[in-house]
Amino acid sequence: MPGKTPKTEMTTDLEARLATVDDSGDVARLLHEFNTEYEAPSPGTEVLAGRLRRLLDSHETFAVLGGEPAVGVGLVTLRPNVWYEGPVALLDELYVKPDLRGRGLGSALIDLIVSTCRQSDVALIEINVDEGDVDAQRFYKRHGFTWSDPESDERAFYFHMELA
Amino acid sequence: MPGKTPKTEMTTDLEARLATVDDSGDVARLLHEFNTEYEAPSPGTEVLAGRLRRLLDSHETFAVLGGEPAVGVGLVTLRPNVWYEGPVALLDELYVKPDLRGRGLGSALIDLIVSTCRQSDVALIEINVDEGDVDAQRFYKRHGFTWSDPESDERAFYFHMELA
Repeated sequence: MPGKTPKTEMTTDLEARLATVDDSGDVARLLHEFNTEYEAPSPGTEVLAGRLRRLLDSHETFAVLGGEPAVGVGLVTLRPNVWYEGPVALLDELYVKPDLRGRGLGSALIDLIVSTCRQSDVALIEINVDEGDVDAQRFYKRHGFTWSDPESDERAFYFHMELA
Repeated sequence: MPGKTPKTEMTTDLEARLATVDDSGDVARLLHEFNTEYEAPSPGTEVLAGRLRRLLDSHETFAVLGGEPAVGVGLVTLRPNVWYEGPVALLDELYVKPDLRGRGLGSALIDLIVSTCRQSDVALIEINVDEGDVDAQRFYKRHGFTWSDPESDERAFYFHMELA
């Protein structure tokens, strides 16, 4: 069947893997496409790639990629926290290209993010999810995240102030 | 008037200042009191003080204190972010002892946090505020924070997963 890729090949293609410094260009390209799709500002692929070369070379950031060539990306930053011995992780970005959604790549990426965090002694993973993005909320709940505090059963809102 | 402190002295007492490593014990004591007041778990003052000695000696965390002896505290962690040249700050904790609230110390602490962030080239300050804590929401809005995205006008919820 011309134009149709056998299913076995698809499955192989959509595996998730930890990004290295050499993947900075791919991570940058996907993050830029992410923001472009959602009409959010982006400094462009080149600036992002330069920053990622520094970030992915540190212990404060890691990224995951899915597919070959990469069609999905996840970006995580770590920081210290007084309440835990280990670091706290924030999932900054998780993106799969539109035509490749619904095939489990998002799940493969988040599973790899969680297992990488466990290996790095991360105590807590955090994500900020838009109030109206019920698909993402369902996705994260299905993968073990909660939006309510275990003690108070309350949700929390994300507040911010731009200084730059 | 016995037992009554003159107003001028009060004002002096409730100034905010940047904490040093030597203040780790005071920061720890107030954070422990904070969690005890809200019935949240705490590893205790000694463990917190040990962690704070490491954290306050790094460029990833700073704290502010108010009053002498200290009766208010703010704790901020910094992390790199791909979208900005400078770091992103998260206000982890802000606490004033119950009997000293309503006298402007919270404002003095948040003002010092924001100006310290500006001096450190912080691009963005973030806070997670409980959905039901309308007083805190009003406080942060009054101090220049917003809970809605400038592009989408949408709020975002804080999701998390404990691993420790």
